[in-house]
Amino acid sequence: MESIDIKTPSKEYPVFLGQHVIEQLPLFLEKNYSDITKLLIISDEKVASIHLHKVKELAAKSGKQVLEYIVPEGEHAKTFDVFYQCQSFALANGLNRKSMILALGGGAVGDVAGFVAATFMRGIPFIQLPTTLLAHDSAVGGKVAINHPEGKNMIGAFYQPEAVFYELSFLHTLPIKELRSGFAEVIKHALIQDPEFYKWLLTEIQDLAAITDEQYLYMIKRGIAIKASIVKEDEKENGVRAYLNFGHTLGHAVEGLMGYGNFTHGEAVLIGCVYALKLSQYKGLSFDLVEFMEWVQSLGYSTNIPKQLDHTSLIQKMKKDKKTISDTITFVLLNEVGFPELAEINDEIILKQLEEIF
Amino acid sequence: MESIDIKTPSKEYPVFLGQHVIEQLPLFLEKNYSDITKLLIISDEKVASIHLHKVKELAAKSGKQVLEYIVPEGEHAKTFDVFYQCQSFALANGLNRKSMILALGGGAVGDVAGFVAATFMRGIPFIQLPTTLLAHDSAVGGKVAINHPEGKNMIGAFYQPEAVFYELSFLHTLPIKELRSGFAEVIKHALIQDPEFYKWLLTEIQDLAAITDEQYLYMIKRGIAIKASIVKEDEKENGVRAYLNFGHTLGHAVEGLMGYGNFTHGEAVLIGCVYALKLSQYKGLSFDLVEFMEWVQSLGYSTNIPKQLDHTSLIQKMKKDKKTISDTITFVLLNEVGFPELAEINDEIILKQLEEIF
Repeated sequence: MESIDIKTPSKEYPVFLGQHVIEQLPLFLEKNYSDITKLLIISDEKVASIHLHKVKELAAKSGKQVLEYIVPEGEHAKTFDVFYQCQSFALANGLNRKSMILALGGGAVGDVAGFVAATFMRGIPFIQLPTTLLAHDSAVGGKVAINHPEGKNMIGAFYQPEAVFYELSFLHTLPIKELRSGFAEVIKHALIQDPEFYKWLLTEIQDLAAITDEQYLYMIKRGIAIKASIVKEDEKENGVRAYLNFGHTLGHAVEGLMGYGNFTHGEAVLIGCVYALKLSQYKGLSFDLVEFMEWVQSLGYSTNIPKQLDHTSLIQKMKKDKKTISDTITFVLLNEVGFPELAEINDEIILKQLEEIF
Repeated sequence: MESIDIKTPSKEYPVFLGQHVIEQLPLFLEKNYSDITKLLIISDEKVASIHLHKVKELAAKSGKQVLEYIVPEGEHAKTFDVFYQCQSFALANGLNRKSMILALGGGAVGDVAGFVAATFMRGIPFIQLPTTLLAHDSAVGGKVAINHPEGKNMIGAFYQPEAVFYELSFLHTLPIKELRSGFAEVIKHALIQDPEFYKWLLTEIQDLAAITDEQYLYMIKRGIAIKASIVKEDEKENGVRAYLNFGHTLGHAVEGLMGYGNFTHGEAVLIGCVYALKLSQYKGLSFDLVEFMEWVQSLGYSTNIPKQLDHTSLIQKMKKDKKTISDTITFVLLNEVGFPELAEINDEIILKQLEEIF
């Protein structure tokens, strides 16, 4: 079992990673949270049907009362209504400040469950039990949120979990589309901080359906370490944390305009990465974009913006992003692989490059 | 102009207190928040009709764009719907992380506006501009929240403002009922921490309609200092901050069962103080309760639980309080004036004392 310590200015907590780490949950709870009396597992319909039974059994072993609340799948979990329903359920079932939330699922479940934990009675503890590859990104760093029709993750908080139990065997049940979504964030982490890791990915990962446990362990460990090093420096996104947004400026716009849940986060981010790499080349990056495109296409990614989206709408959407602080859109670009920087790019160049590449 | 520094583990900020402090707002913004481009004033209907014009004018002097959003009065501002509407307004008007919220009003406005600030794009800065005496309590300490039908302040956060501008002249426009509500928290602060201050209040304040500016200045300064000393030690209510809850266990239950907005917070808290003092006497406090009752009655407080509330419902309601962590209700009692302690009291005694006193 690997254990990675995440240090942020507001909190320090462990990420347990490996096969069977979930078995350690009861002892961890008993040992560190003797004052907690109730556990509320928040999960989604699909994940619950596969993993809830086991997790409930393990949670109950801690001797605490275990409750469950099931939310819709994917981004449909991240609405104001679902947020309110979770709060109502918690209140109706007598949760209080001696209760804890367990977020069992992918990024969306972690986001809404974490935001419920952050705000229920002004904050109760929560633990992330990620079930997707994407969660190597979302479960670490304390970003929790729900969506507003005007934009993704618009209402939320920075609220760190008590711990993350990353059970690798859960990944075996993931549909390939979900794997592909999560792997895009792995690629992103490599691009912004670790040329070696990027080379390793390019060489080692040729088929997403054939990733070995050893490869998973390595890539998740590297991904989390990269994210942790950035979050440690900048928990609340005032500085370097913005680099994690590589590929997300255009990615979020694509995802949003397609309608949340209709296009996976990672697949949209991958298109955003392609675009950010192209912009970076325009600014002087020396990078083999052709090799990159061939590789990601061979992994099943689309590298094109969906046809129904026009470039002007994309620009408008990007201007509404919460990292956008002026009328000019800010992108994360690369000087070299591993060396990101923020750059404000004017609309004309954005449009020209959009037309050139897509 | 008085300036009191509030120090919490997460933040340090000033409370400016006195006549004309509000005039200092533009310079303060210009000097300390040059990167902020938009200000959103959140206020309620009544306060806006009296003070919005002036505050808007002052805010605009900072050179930033000024927007306003008006919420309903009192606890009606603290609903999920209003919270959502504020967020929607902010998004529709292009607020972003370079925007700031100004909460102009009493405790309710501060609570909802603060919670909007705490969660909009995961947190933007806000400034409290309190207009009530009650706000000497609510505007300091970073508790922000909205209500749930199941209980007051159930959904919220600990989120500190950038500053508090406490304009004393705003108090001149306060209805006596509102003054009475706020003065109850002044009494509470004296009782839990400062016997001298309690004596001063008992001697000096005989008519709420005739409080002088000098008296206001003194009592608010003392009240804030007491609250600040507690919040400094315990920002997130894990320990001594619970003492601030003196009078609130029964008070919140009375307020809740009467329907939020139908009975002022402070008037309910005062009844809770009477009851907590009685329980404290039962536990050994030597205190002239008769003198206290006469004094507060002469100030216009009711010291009786409203007739329509039965004692069993009150006990049930108290058990749902978010500070209640077991089946036994926890009260803040006094050993002496100035020396509070937490005590779990069983239902039988609670009921017996309720019947004896009311």
